[in-house]
Amino acid sequence: MKKDRRVLVDHSSLDDAGVFAYGRGEALVQTVDFFTPVVDDPYDFGQVAAANAVSDVYAMGATPITALAILCVPETPLPEGTLRAILAGGQDKLKEAGVSILGGHSVKDPELKFGYAVTGVAPRRRLLTNAGARAGDRLILTKPLGAGVLATALKRGELDPAAVRRMTRVMATLNRAASEAAVEYGARAATDVTGFGLIGHALQMADASAVTFRLRPSREWFQPRALDLAARGVAPGGLKSNREFYGPRIREGLIPEPLRLGLYDPQTSGGLLIAIPPRRASAFRAALRRRRVWHVDAGEVAPRSAVAIELEAG
Amino acid sequence: MKKDRRVLVDHSSLDDAGVFAYGRGEALVQTVDFFTPVVDDPYDFGQVAAANAVSDVYAMGATPITALAILCVPETPLPEGTLRAILAGGQDKLKEAGVSILGGHSVKDPELKFGYAVTGVAPRRRLLTNAGARAGDRLILTKPLGAGVLATALKRGELDPAAVRRMTRVMATLNRAASEAAVEYGARAATDVTGFGLIGHALQMADASAVTFRLRPSREWFQPRALDLAARGVAPGGLKSNREFYGPRIREGLIPEPLRLGLYDPQTSGGLLIAIPPRRASAFRAALRRRRVWHVDAGEVAPRSAVAIELEAG
Repeated sequence: MKKDRRVLVDHSSLDDAGVFAYGRGEALVQTVDFFTPVVDDPYDFGQVAAANAVSDVYAMGATPITALAILCVPETPLPEGTLRAILAGGQDKLKEAGVSILGGHSVKDPELKFGYAVTGVAPRRRLLTNAGARAGDRLILTKPLGAGVLATALKRGELDPAAVRRMTRVMATLNRAASEAAVEYGARAATDVTGFGLIGHALQMADASAVTFRLRPSREWFQPRALDLAARGVAPGGLKSNREFYGPRIREGLIPEPLRLGLYDPQTSGGLLIAIPPRRASAFRAALRRRRVWHVDAGEVAPRSAVAIELEAG
Repeated sequence: MKKDRRVLVDHSSLDDAGVFAYGRGEALVQTVDFFTPVVDDPYDFGQVAAANAVSDVYAMGATPITALAILCVPETPLPEGTLRAILAGGQDKLKEAGVSILGGHSVKDPELKFGYAVTGVAPRRRLLTNAGARAGDRLILTKPLGAGVLATALKRGELDPAAVRRMTRVMATLNRAASEAAVEYGARAATDVTGFGLIGHALQMADASAVTFRLRPSREWFQPRALDLAARGVAPGGLKSNREFYGPRIREGLIPEPLRLGLYDPQTSGGLLIAIPPRRASAFRAALRRRRVWHVDAGEVAPRSAVAIELEAG
């Protein structure tokens, strides 16, 4: 099918969202995501589902404006107030993001699922795609990793309440402040870290930009408990398949095994991975600190080598 | 929650889609719909799902521009090529509508479901909402009714191949030409006829416009076979619940029972019900004929009486 010239980004580029030219120099940025509960509390689940759905828009450097709710509901009755709490969690989180809910659709499904189709807007020339990273850029990660391992431990009843609260807070945090700072300080490229793990999404960015990412992972990239659990073999199915799929394209280096595993951990509502020109990196980091955005230096962008990702001891 | 002033229409008004003010005098019109197969052929199902999803945008007098696909897929394997055919059907139909697919999301679900989140655009002052009908307006219906009854017969194996083809063609027909003519000829209000049946959607329009609709149903409003099947008790569950819900607000008049039943029949991808000022009605009808849009005179708009809908013998 011949593509409409107004389609600036579609699914084929593995970018976070589709982009459509609309208006004078503006673009619509659109994405849809919904999934099964990752936490037990329905209000928290609604918050996480909303933060996750708008994240793809933030990853493109755009401002989300509208959302349509998507709800899959079992016919067997849920505990009283469950659906109301999920919708309220989503609504409150979207309000925080300045997003208006225009409608939605619900269907029957034995497994509860919730999420949104989200539309954002941005000036076309300020969009952050996967393709803009250049050799010399610094890489910044804006949320700690480990959500997949922790959620697996939660399902097995092996996670203490404090860890559950931390994990939930991380997933429910909007990538808004990180995205706004990235646009303001001239970031060259960004993606959000979700199902393919840090490695998978970094690799897509490195490929799209025709560069190699040098990552220097350390324990501080992870939520507390996540690496210990990973070392004990607690891992979601997606971690293994990510490693099988992306592993051959990585130079894994001499880093400890649990750390290595954690880089393949699939994230829900993960942070942004941002490529920023070196001369702007320290001002950008200061801006993230001022805006209270958790972040770590993840490494830097190098000219393309034989592999897309090189891991180095941190 | 305090509503953003840019939200011109949301779910609370029972309109066909949400509307958000964007740009100079422009509006985004958004809707999401996905459902289980209504026909056996996967390509046809994709076409119907796409025509149905964009219909809510046409019902607002807007032009659909982008779509995100939503696919729920069973883990048990489907016949070879099924998903590809569904997606191809949807893609071809959206191409016909001039809509670009920007991305999508798929989830596991024991029951196959497919559809789209669709975004359209329109000048704000040309939007066709439910609320604009005035006494004296003529009512025009742009697709024959009966899809719910016919689909029920199909599931029971009681429908001949010619009737299946006709039903499929009706559901897969875009409401584009009808919508464009309605905007061009100054229609005052419109809705698309879907799950609540002609009566349910007419009632929402009459209520929103604070008027009464006088409908004069006849056999020619229906696809062949539909009324005979309805007379024999072939009816989807939705027909009965629509009648229970809306019946008390209708003056049913002295019309034959099968005809009456058919007005409550839930439609998939049904036609538009359009209110057009009387002095423009004949030019509008001529335009529909030129554009080869099936249509019937459905009645007219009267000042508000004790009931929202009055049925009269045709």
